[in-house]
Amino acid sequence: MTKLFHPTILVVNDDGITAPGIKAMMHVMKEIGRVVVVAPDSPQSGMGHAITIGKPLRLDEVDLYEGIEMYRCSGTPVDCVKLAVTKIFKGKKPDLCVSGINHGLNNSINVLYSGTMSAAVEGAIESIPSIGYSLDDYNMDANFQHCLKYVKEIALQVLQNGMPTGTLLNVNFPNTANIKGIKICRQANAKWAEEFDQRVDPYKRPYYWLTGVFQNNDNGEDTDVWALDHHYASVVPVQFDMTAHHAIPVLHSWKFNV
Amino acid sequence: MTKLFHPTILVVNDDGITAPGIKAMMHVMKEIGRVVVVAPDSPQSGMGHAITIGKPLRLDEVDLYEGIEMYRCSGTPVDCVKLAVTKIFKGKKPDLCVSGINHGLNNSINVLYSGTMSAAVEGAIESIPSIGYSLDDYNMDANFQHCLKYVKEIALQVLQNGMPTGTLLNVNFPNTANIKGIKICRQANAKWAEEFDQRVDPYKRPYYWLTGVFQNNDNGEDTDVWALDHHYASVVPVQFDMTAHHAIPVLHSWKFNV
Repeated sequence: MTKLFHPTILVVNDDGITAPGIKAMMHVMKEIGRVVVVAPDSPQSGMGHAITIGKPLRLDEVDLYEGIEMYRCSGTPVDCVKLAVTKIFKGKKPDLCVSGINHGLNNSINVLYSGTMSAAVEGAIESIPSIGYSLDDYNMDANFQHCLKYVKEIALQVLQNGMPTGTLLNVNFPNTANIKGIKICRQANAKWAEEFDQRVDPYKRPYYWLTGVFQNNDNGEDTDVWALDHHYASVVPVQFDMTAHHAIPVLHSWKFNV
Repeated sequence: MTKLFHPTILVVNDDGITAPGIKAMMHVMKEIGRVVVVAPDSPQSGMGHAITIGKPLRLDEVDLYEGIEMYRCSGTPVDCVKLAVTKIFKGKKPDLCVSGINHGLNNSINVLYSGTMSAAVEGAIESIPSIGYSLDDYNMDANFQHCLKYVKEIALQVLQNGMPTGTLLNVNFPNTANIKGIKICRQANAKWAEEFDQRVDPYKRPYYWLTGVFQNNDNGEDTDVWALDHHYASVVPVQFDMTAHHAIPVLHSWKFNV
């Protein structure tokens, strides 16, 4: 691949600016181009596409790693992208937006709950080629080493080819030193079966912790769940047009009595 | 339409349990069946599909309106649906989940940012026929009267017909006493052009308020933006499979050097 230019790359995440995953990401991206990091000042996992309404945001430049322009933001991952585009890049958009590397998978239905993926979605809404990356390891001492060559190659491909209009990539890595390769996939039909751990506080009032079990209801061998189970990196093209186009004719057949 | 049964209806929102919009909704739904309200204890607009991880949740029964079973929840709109399904319905799912009526539109790209719509999406993930409703009036004294017959009729149609697997409805109402009827639509290709109002706090440090201008980039007459501009109620079928299926062949044509 010919590198035709020195691209500007916006790096975001949801685990917060001090997470090892974003450190791994920014060092890989520095091999490709100019890196600007805008990340939450605290963990924002599970924030989905939340934005901050009704309270003000802070954005402060920080000096954590030499030679990398970095800002910490008091808002959500999506706020970080909006602030970056408006206040840092000021309309001159970056060539690429990468989010992560997330500590924990964002495959299948997790694309909806994930702050990592929502930041990448927001990048795509801003017409920036965007990728979210996640590794199947929730630990803060997760080892990102084995996935870095894939992170870099997928970013280079997106820079070279561009993304089809209105799409971005959701990339997930299995937690293994022997990743077998890349599989292009669709989002598996899966969900979380919630369980709430009910406890009683010192004042005798109940409270609940959200927990759950991931349930895959999809036997397809073209899904991200299948690819990860078989030690492949999964690459799902994602869109933010949520219209169920196939359901439009069904609704036209309904007779509304109003 | 024959009402074959007395359905159980879960009512949620993102403006909080005391909002006039949810009051209007619960009274309409009470004409159809048994109503159970589970709503945030404070406004949660713009929370998207956020869930609460890392801190506990509260769920308390409250007695605000005679004859209606109501719970306030300390979490997000999506948390409300998860807690309702798990802790209140305990696996015996409601026949319908309705969210709103939101104070303010959730058409087009707003489906991603909206807590109202994300609660309805979560209902659909739980295989409950689900509808999000919104009115083009952000004021707390918004007049919901003109849209109530549509709210009821659309709910009855969903109860009668069911929803295609993996879909739900996003219903928006124009702010007019003369709604012309219902249009089945697709999500318009539109976005927010962000503007951050930058101020300085009493300690001389900058802070930012998120504001923005809604930009419609879609001339189609089959969109929700068009319908609302022309005084129709817009009904968009929404799905939570975010796979950009049309982009899969494109990605297969890329040559990954890894």
